[in-house]
Amino acid sequence: MRYRKRDFPLDEIRRFVEPGPIVLVSSAWKGERNIMTMGWHTMLGFTPALIGCYIWPENHSFGLIRKSKECVINIPTVDLADAVVGVGNTSGRDLDKFAEFGLTPVRAAKVRAPLIAECYASLECRTTETRLVTSYSFFVFEVVKAHAPAAPKYPRTLHYRGDGVFMIAGRSVSYRKKFRPENL
Amino acid sequence: MRYRKRDFPLDEIRRFVEPGPIVLVSSAWKGERNIMTMGWHTMLGFTPALIGCYIWPENHSFGLIRKSKECVINIPTVDLADAVVGVGNTSGRDLDKFAEFGLTPVRAAKVRAPLIAECYASLECRTTETRLVTSYSFFVFEVVKAHAPAAPKYPRTLHYRGDGVFMIAGRSVSYRKKFRPENL
Repeated sequence: MRYRKRDFPLDEIRRFVEPGPIVLVSSAWKGERNIMTMGWHTMLGFTPALIGCYIWPENHSFGLIRKSKECVINIPTVDLADAVVGVGNTSGRDLDKFAEFGLTPVRAAKVRAPLIAECYASLECRTTETRLVTSYSFFVFEVVKAHAPAAPKYPRTLHYRGDGVFMIAGRSVSYRKKFRPENL
Repeated sequence: MRYRKRDFPLDEIRRFVEPGPIVLVSSAWKGERNIMTMGWHTMLGFTPALIGCYIWPENHSFGLIRKSKECVINIPTVDLADAVVGVGNTSGRDLDKFAEFGLTPVRAAKVRAPLIAECYASLECRTTETRLVTSYSFFVFEVVKAHAPAAPKYPRTLHYRGDGVFMIAGRSVSYRKKFRPENL
């Protein structure tokens, strides 16, 4: 499945990231490229749009991201569950995950890491903070360009619970009327 | 609704935190107590169990947590949606949120901040890392004690999408057989 994407406002990407989806992080460095599955991340700001991420140093992608100072955070939906599990259980040291799992690399606008065409949304990122990388494997990225479709507004994302189990995003409910306008 | 809780293994708390639920953070300092709604957090380690959190300095809880170096991260389920929205749209400067939203403070085992009885799970936390507090409002907490029920295993948590809209956790599916054992 391919979503028809458009430029998406950077100050609204919380919609995709904050509910805690498992994401596919693509990276590239000196002719090499890779994908990793990531579940440990959080929004850290709207303007600039910041995302904090834990990237395990044992992951092959760690070196590509640390050296290139770039990555793309791609949001897969439930139709990509097999690829998500496959990407998370193989190493880029041994194979080309794009070819292996039928994922299509697409040139990004502002970074060298490729977008993944089959994902619902893609966030082009540059590293902005590395003080906690040594002790906590924690990077902060600034999202410099976002690609997302107009519909569906609420994608059926995957949310990892550990032990091989994923929660699939359920229905959405609005409490908008109970919010103070400045908190929306 | 009250869940019947037991001590929960600290190295398995990812089950609650990683899918990205909105949480209620309780805190206390010098006779004052408060609750805030928080959506920006991430797992950062299993042993010790670490959780990274963005806490906005404008929140009344920021001072209580920074001074006491403690908090409790409570996981609410969908039956608490009204309280979650209420807590997120009021300030502890003006009212006692426990009384206002019918939430019951319970003495914690290892920290002075209270547990919230009505939540599905409660994680007692101590601050372990503050280098990014000034520039990113980012704290790292170590979970020192966890309380959670044996059932339901997969709670119907709330996941914020911005704009007053929450996603409610949907069904869980296991891909356990496709995982390498060391990745479970």
